[in-house]
Amino acid sequence: MKIVSNGEPVFEWVNEQGASPFVLICEHASNFVPPQLNRLGLSEADLQRHIAYDLGAAEVARLLSRLLDAPLILQRYSRLIYDCNRSPESAGAIAMVSEAFQIPGNVDLSPEEKAARILQVCRPFHHALERHLDGRAAAGKVTGLVSIHSFTRVYNGKRRAVDLGLLFDRDVTLAHALMKSFPDINTQLNEPYGPKDGVMHLMNLHGAPRGLQHLMVEICNDLIETERKQQQWAQRLSVPLIQAAAKLGEKK
Amino acid sequence: MKIVSNGEPVFEWVNEQGASPFVLICEHASNFVPPQLNRLGLSEADLQRHIAYDLGAAEVARLLSRLLDAPLILQRYSRLIYDCNRSPESAGAIAMVSEAFQIPGNVDLSPEEKAARILQVCRPFHHALERHLDGRAAAGKVTGLVSIHSFTRVYNGKRRAVDLGLLFDRDVTLAHALMKSFPDINTQLNEPYGPKDGVMHLMNLHGAPRGLQHLMVEICNDLIETERKQQQWAQRLSVPLIQAAAKLGEKK
Repeated sequence: MKIVSNGEPVFEWVNEQGASPFVLICEHASNFVPPQLNRLGLSEADLQRHIAYDLGAAEVARLLSRLLDAPLILQRYSRLIYDCNRSPESAGAIAMVSEAFQIPGNVDLSPEEKAARILQVCRPFHHALERHLDGRAAAGKVTGLVSIHSFTRVYNGKRRAVDLGLLFDRDVTLAHALMKSFPDINTQLNEPYGPKDGVMHLMNLHGAPRGLQHLMVEICNDLIETERKQQQWAQRLSVPLIQAAAKLGEKK
Repeated sequence: MKIVSNGEPVFEWVNEQGASPFVLICEHASNFVPPQLNRLGLSEADLQRHIAYDLGAAEVARLLSRLLDAPLILQRYSRLIYDCNRSPESAGAIAMVSEAFQIPGNVDLSPEEKAARILQVCRPFHHALERHLDGRAAAGKVTGLVSIHSFTRVYNGKRRAVDLGLLFDRDVTLAHALMKSFPDINTQLNEPYGPKDGVMHLMNLHGAPRGLQHLMVEICNDLIETERKQQQWAQRLSVPLIQAAAKLGEKK
């Protein structure tokens, strides 16, 4: 089987023993493409764009992990190699086009090349999260899942009005809990993406079947483009999450 | 870590390369309890009852696998050790009580003992199914999931009228497709169990996040208590499933 990874784990845990009931997830943390994949035929400049990763998301997630004392798992490979928030059945898992950009290195892949990406990039990340959640379940710990994402202000030439998206599918509790916390910005439920776009894959894989409350946070990347803004938004997100943490164990 | 398994795989594949788009699943196929678990404190007679496994389900599933030319995965360990159709967060995953029966060997388990059962009995089964589905996705194969279960006519002293249950949660297509196929018996949607009882775990874990059509079949075990009846019911189930197979790849 073709080797996609560079031998190092494709995931990184931060504060894995953190005391918070929240487990933080950042699937689109990195724009790293291992050398043997030849930048997937893209330029260095292309790999600095949103198509390769969620700008600012990893930084906000790391700061939030510290503020909440929460475990955080990050994917160390670019979503262009395999998008860990998509199922292997989805055309978006190994995208041939992202926004208006062709991804030459993802065209005409053989079943074996696709399988290598699933096995080496997708599964180790999900299995690491799964092992962590299994351990928490065996220990009887209360758990909620929060993933941190960012989106671009302009997409396919259109400007987006939404600043902050609170995304959910099977459970609205956390999205509702945060909805009133940011009155100064345009906050929307299931915008600019939602379940119909297939973006709730990770939550439906790990959260829904376990009955865990879960929330996907989408921040417009112009709100988190500097370290200072990232700190501000990690701080702002931490306040309602700390309040919500106290209610996570309550039966609905 | 305490060893739960006897070293052999906890799952069995039958006809793994079968040509059908359906992948069959039998989580409750076996009443096997490895010797070191001392029958979980139960008698041999108790382990012959429905509490330990779904009587007749494995036989029907094997016959159906042959009729459809479909891959079938069976769990080789009793659900009393770990119920692979429940999440590790669920009290029913390692049940302390089943129907009215106390399960002494499942009381007062430490986090380490629970984790051993999750790691050694639950995960290898689910990972085997996951690898199979990943391989199908990489090869671009159409897939539908069908699990085969049985239930008891009398439960907690009450007689059940339903003969055949077609269970679904996220996708009703297959349940509807089979609903009119058995006019001579009492067929019901989401009876005698349904999503509210947490029994759609496996389908929500493997089917829903991949966007696969899926169906859980629950047959009253008095309909499949002899080899002849098992053959009859495998045959009857195969007819509408073969019709449904042709429509699996169609977009909704």
